[in-house]
Amino acid sequence: MTAPDRRFAANILRGFIAEALVTQDLPPDDAATVAKLMVEADLLGGDGHGIFRLPRYLARLRAGGFNPRPQIRVERRQGAMALVDGDNGMGHLVMKRCAELATEIAGTQGIGWVGAHHSNHAGAAGVYAMMPLAADMIGLYVAVGNANHMAPWGGIELLLSTNPIAVAVPGATQPILLDMATTTAAYGKVKLAAQRGETMPEGWMIDALGQALTDPAKAAGGSLLPIGGPKGFGLALIFGLLAGTLNGAAFGRDVIDFNADDSSPTNTGQFILALDIKAFGDVATFKTRVDSIRAEMKSSPLRPGFDGIRLPGERAFAVRQERLAHGVPVGGKLLTDLDAEAQRLGIPPLTVRT
Amino acid sequence: MTAPDRRFAANILRGFIAEALVTQDLPPDDAATVAKLMVEADLLGGDGHGIFRLPRYLARLRAGGFNPRPQIRVERRQGAMALVDGDNGMGHLVMKRCAELATEIAGTQGIGWVGAHHSNHAGAAGVYAMMPLAADMIGLYVAVGNANHMAPWGGIELLLSTNPIAVAVPGATQPILLDMATTTAAYGKVKLAAQRGETMPEGWMIDALGQALTDPAKAAGGSLLPIGGPKGFGLALIFGLLAGTLNGAAFGRDVIDFNADDSSPTNTGQFILALDIKAFGDVATFKTRVDSIRAEMKSSPLRPGFDGIRLPGERAFAVRQERLAHGVPVGGKLLTDLDAEAQRLGIPPLTVRT
Repeated sequence: MTAPDRRFAANILRGFIAEALVTQDLPPDDAATVAKLMVEADLLGGDGHGIFRLPRYLARLRAGGFNPRPQIRVERRQGAMALVDGDNGMGHLVMKRCAELATEIAGTQGIGWVGAHHSNHAGAAGVYAMMPLAADMIGLYVAVGNANHMAPWGGIELLLSTNPIAVAVPGATQPILLDMATTTAAYGKVKLAAQRGETMPEGWMIDALGQALTDPAKAAGGSLLPIGGPKGFGLALIFGLLAGTLNGAAFGRDVIDFNADDSSPTNTGQFILALDIKAFGDVATFKTRVDSIRAEMKSSPLRPGFDGIRLPGERAFAVRQERLAHGVPVGGKLLTDLDAEAQRLGIPPLTVRT
Repeated sequence: MTAPDRRFAANILRGFIAEALVTQDLPPDDAATVAKLMVEADLLGGDGHGIFRLPRYLARLRAGGFNPRPQIRVERRQGAMALVDGDNGMGHLVMKRCAELATEIAGTQGIGWVGAHHSNHAGAAGVYAMMPLAADMIGLYVAVGNANHMAPWGGIELLLSTNPIAVAVPGATQPILLDMATTTAAYGKVKLAAQRGETMPEGWMIDALGQALTDPAKAAGGSLLPIGGPKGFGLALIFGLLAGTLNGAAFGRDVIDFNADDSSPTNTGQFILALDIKAFGDVATFKTRVDSIRAEMKSSPLRPGFDGIRLPGERAFAVRQERLAHGVPVGGKLLTDLDAEAQRLGIPPLTVRT
């Protein structure tokens, strides 16, 4: 029997996730950090990157695919760059460390670039791009995705992931937050369409014969399509080289399918760049100018069929306000799964928590 | 009467361009530098960014829109970053200086980020991204384009340029060079279709009412469409903020239409990032790995309708070899215009040069 959909306060979800992770030998502080970053993804509307991932993470911890007590360390450090070895810890812990280090470096060097290898899936890209904002910096995050769902342009073999980029730019009233995959649709949207029995529009995927694929139930083996054809392929390739190859992390055929293999280390690569605005000019002037650009863009007459012009991140910040006020929705199927996990782990089910 | 199409050796084109620029008061060394970088664009197949631009540049020099003898200076310098004031000089001079400085900084700091303002149109983005390669570095270049041809997603007012990105990554045998606009088609392709009386495919442009625009003769006032809809809009916006706003350069309504206004300073913004590979690991290992990734991508079975998988830059490098061997093609219309310029400037026409 599937539970009905429900909403939970963010702190309830955080507590549940942290308790679950502690049963798998994460230190309580690390478990709390991962829980906070996962729920931050949920708050920003990244439903595929928050608590939805907990069952998979727990399966991987049980199978020994994550190191629950990693010694995350700075392996190389020169000038404005660092390379971090994540020691196969949960990606959230590795990326938080990288974002903090990039911010610290940028504070003296103007910019800071921190790459990682032996990292793992870290959830929502935007969460890490946002971290340098607190120091009045611009944040940029790029990752090699954790399963190859895209063929090179002109081919059909799945050699690339959706390699996402997120960039956060502070404004006087609200930041701009771009958080995008280099594919037309994220693979999560395909899964969602399959779950709902919907047809996909042409342009999302092609099948193994290169034909348009619109039935999401047949998505296995099919390829997501890159934005702008060869351009999106080029971006995914370059992001893979910068976040993967440059850091000595997996890219191409080396990428482990995180959803199919719970035990092999993924050697995930990511990098974070922080840019200190005050190195370039006056911070308040910059932020005011970002607001003006936002207002300019929104002032354009509308194209028929559109009810407004939304800037990157605008929807996410609105969702965050709504979910902070009214709770984070958890679907019935996920809630049932989480309660089954709770029973297995010997912690109180999410359903009874208030 | 229009001259027939012809090919010219690269050094002939360089000599012609340099002589023409010297008549407009550029110091001979600077004129030679600009000529070299313009012809490099032609060699790489960027026909819209090389000698094709000379008549426009000359018109702007005559109208006082460029400073022929700029004092390009480092205005801010901290750690791994610099901000360069281009003093309204030709963009080629400013960007060459920025690329050299970024490479120098990266040599000690691991990475170097150099932004510019009061710069100008610099031609082909890829030419600058390639500069750090000579020092075994990765190069990345982003610019605010010199005319707004794109509306924000959902709108119809032209507030954005095609804001391009170029990234060059060295390999053991050949680099990878991505050089792309954030729009489906570059505006030059629209102009070319108009010149040839061809129809544009749907997806390139919309008209002022938001309807698909396929007649390139009606392109004025229409909007190019971004790759991936809101994603390409997001990229163009972020690139504008990083290359323009962060550097105190023009972005949005401040952008001067370089093709319509020859005298107003453009305050163009660009930035170049250099990443020193040896700061991250062994250079030879990295380059070999880039070659493996290239081979992997090319080994994929083909999608029907494709005759091969091309990596970013592959076509450009092949064109460069061919043009070095057989000369750079110059269309009859352009050749006629260039000879008219030569007559006006009192230098030997291109037609008679061998």
